[in-house]
Amino acid sequence: MSGSADASARSVGIPAPLAWSGGELTVLDQRGLPARERYLRCRTPEDVAAAIRSLAVRGAPLVGSAAAFGVALAAVRSHGRGAAGAVEDMTAARDMLVATRPTAVNLAVAATRVLDAGRRAAEHGHRRDVREAALEEARAIGRDEERACLEMGRRGAMLVPEHGNILTHCNTGALATGGIGTALGVIATAHRMGKRLHVWVTETRPLWQGARLTAWELQRLGIPMTLVVDGAVGSLMARGLVDLAIVGADRIAANGDTANKIGTYQIAVMADHDDIAFVVAAPRSTVDLGTPDGSAIVVEDRDEDEVTRPFGLAVAPKGTHAANPAFDVTPASLIDAIVTDAGVVHPPFVSGLRRVLGDERSPDPTPERSAVG
Amino acid sequence: MSGSADASARSVGIPAPLAWSGGELTVLDQRGLPARERYLRCRTPEDVAAAIRSLAVRGAPLVGSAAAFGVALAAVRSHGRGAAGAVEDMTAARDMLVATRPTAVNLAVAATRVLDAGRRAAEHGHRRDVREAALEEARAIGRDEERACLEMGRRGAMLVPEHGNILTHCNTGALATGGIGTALGVIATAHRMGKRLHVWVTETRPLWQGARLTAWELQRLGIPMTLVVDGAVGSLMARGLVDLAIVGADRIAANGDTANKIGTYQIAVMADHDDIAFVVAAPRSTVDLGTPDGSAIVVEDRDEDEVTRPFGLAVAPKGTHAANPAFDVTPASLIDAIVTDAGVVHPPFVSGLRRVLGDERSPDPTPERSAVG
Repeated sequence: MSGSADASARSVGIPAPLAWSGGELTVLDQRGLPARERYLRCRTPEDVAAAIRSLAVRGAPLVGSAAAFGVALAAVRSHGRGAAGAVEDMTAARDMLVATRPTAVNLAVAATRVLDAGRRAAEHGHRRDVREAALEEARAIGRDEERACLEMGRRGAMLVPEHGNILTHCNTGALATGGIGTALGVIATAHRMGKRLHVWVTETRPLWQGARLTAWELQRLGIPMTLVVDGAVGSLMARGLVDLAIVGADRIAANGDTANKIGTYQIAVMADHDDIAFVVAAPRSTVDLGTPDGSAIVVEDRDEDEVTRPFGLAVAPKGTHAANPAFDVTPASLIDAIVTDAGVVHPPFVSGLRRVLGDERSPDPTPERSAVG
Repeated sequence: MSGSADASARSVGIPAPLAWSGGELTVLDQRGLPARERYLRCRTPEDVAAAIRSLAVRGAPLVGSAAAFGVALAAVRSHGRGAAGAVEDMTAARDMLVATRPTAVNLAVAATRVLDAGRRAAEHGHRRDVREAALEEARAIGRDEERACLEMGRRGAMLVPEHGNILTHCNTGALATGGIGTALGVIATAHRMGKRLHVWVTETRPLWQGARLTAWELQRLGIPMTLVVDGAVGSLMARGLVDLAIVGADRIAANGDTANKIGTYQIAVMADHDDIAFVVAAPRSTVDLGTPDGSAIVVEDRDEDEVTRPFGLAVAPKGTHAANPAFDVTPASLIDAIVTDAGVVHPPFVSGLRRVLGDERSPDPTPERSAVG
């Protein structure tokens, strides 16, 4: 296992999307990328919540890491309230942060992990112990995500053909994780192994995470890529120009149903129609055994302006209503493999996911085999 | 059959996208819509070609009508060259206009129709006769498209459920035809018949014809609608929110394979996956029996800036390459019905389309039945 210096976003030439220093969290404001590299300074849990809500920070694993520091900030700021007061403030911060975005499960997992660390420290210690435990846990979550990315990359790269065209959606790279990425980390690892890849990047309306962020990351990684509109995926697949589709996830239910960026489900349907492997890559923190299937996943509806006035450009007449679901749910039946940091899971996912989450010492719950035959 | 006053774009509250007056063709510049209602004055075939190339005028039937006037303009301007010279100039104009956009067949059909009318007039007449014959034919093509829209509307409306959610892609209304539209004409007619409809409008990247033009037309028609990004279609269908998908066409091959705006094919795949009726509406001028199947249709690749810098908004980092196929081909096997002005054709399309085009007196080559069971 490499140290964090090799596993971070910086190691792949991407500015760190999160940095803790001097008692505050510095957040790369991803809304301005790639044109403007701006940073937000978050000094309170509320600042972190605002950054998450506005999508300055996004990507399920990175939102988890940010929320972890958000809870820790509550402890940092709870002067004169003792250990119990700090835990109270952290609990309120956790609840507020979890409410910012409903779909990705990493947020709740990470925020609760920091709160629990603070609670344990409070049992025997002072406020300072609570603060230190919370901060250490938040840092550990970041390091865990970096390590998980490396593991996903290593395991997932086995599913990538020696040469071919990979299609990916949204952004799942360093900017989404703080590490080398989930789906994009798999692509980057396969590329470093010498596999000769070309990546089709979907622009990912409404917020263009593919065009703005994934294209930027792939340029820095030196991986050949071509951008397409979301409506062109079917055409590429029908023309035999896609060998593998790989995406990230915001929440994976116990049966393998997967919530991810809007547009993912239809990529899976088309891959199924044209017999192309469809793979999901996500850390264990994204798997939610408490959600039995996709029907129980809450899909966030976002502001219609993201559709009708993207970045201020009025593309629809005044008074036009838009529906803007931020995610969709891909049924497990359309997924060929789920790459986690603890192993690659093939159907049936119900038992495979449970095995991966249940026994973390077993690195390969199912044999790794090529998803593209 | 209503007169042209009832059949034109103006009859549905949309400004005329084309108007011939004072020896020139006035073209509504659709690139600025809905924000700016600007007009271009085309005095030469080259002006018309430029308007077509730049997409100031778009929509397969309307591009045909514009090209018809473009060829007629060659006759109008061929002073002192006699009837034979006028025909020569018209031939050159036809060739230039046909080369502007390769996919829609209406362009070649309409331009050639005007040239043929000029040739016939030249056999016995003067340049003035050629000019008058060419202009009359161009006007007749516009009237024919208006009538064809009304017929498609009447016939296609029978396939629309009494109430439900209709999904459409790109713009196929008055702005695409000069009449009431193809797919959108079907929706408008069903709405006027009292059917209670709500329309899902796909924004249709890269040029937002859905957001800019279809939303605008539906607002003026008073038909309830909601805009979505192209990536949301699958999610809507999976949630049971689409009862019928109906689109236009740029070229229909003899076997029913249909070229239409990029994104159409994947809507058809998803409709098939979720057992939703998928219907194409197009005038007979769009059916090309000379193209045996979709593999023979040339798909236009447009400038990558339409993807990377839409309306000047830089959404991708500098140096990003994009693929920008303007159309895709939906195989006949995914199409439940093709609505033409001469009748609704159900599979097998090979015989049905031939019947529709071969005997124009037979208005209903196959019995009309509901496409949505």
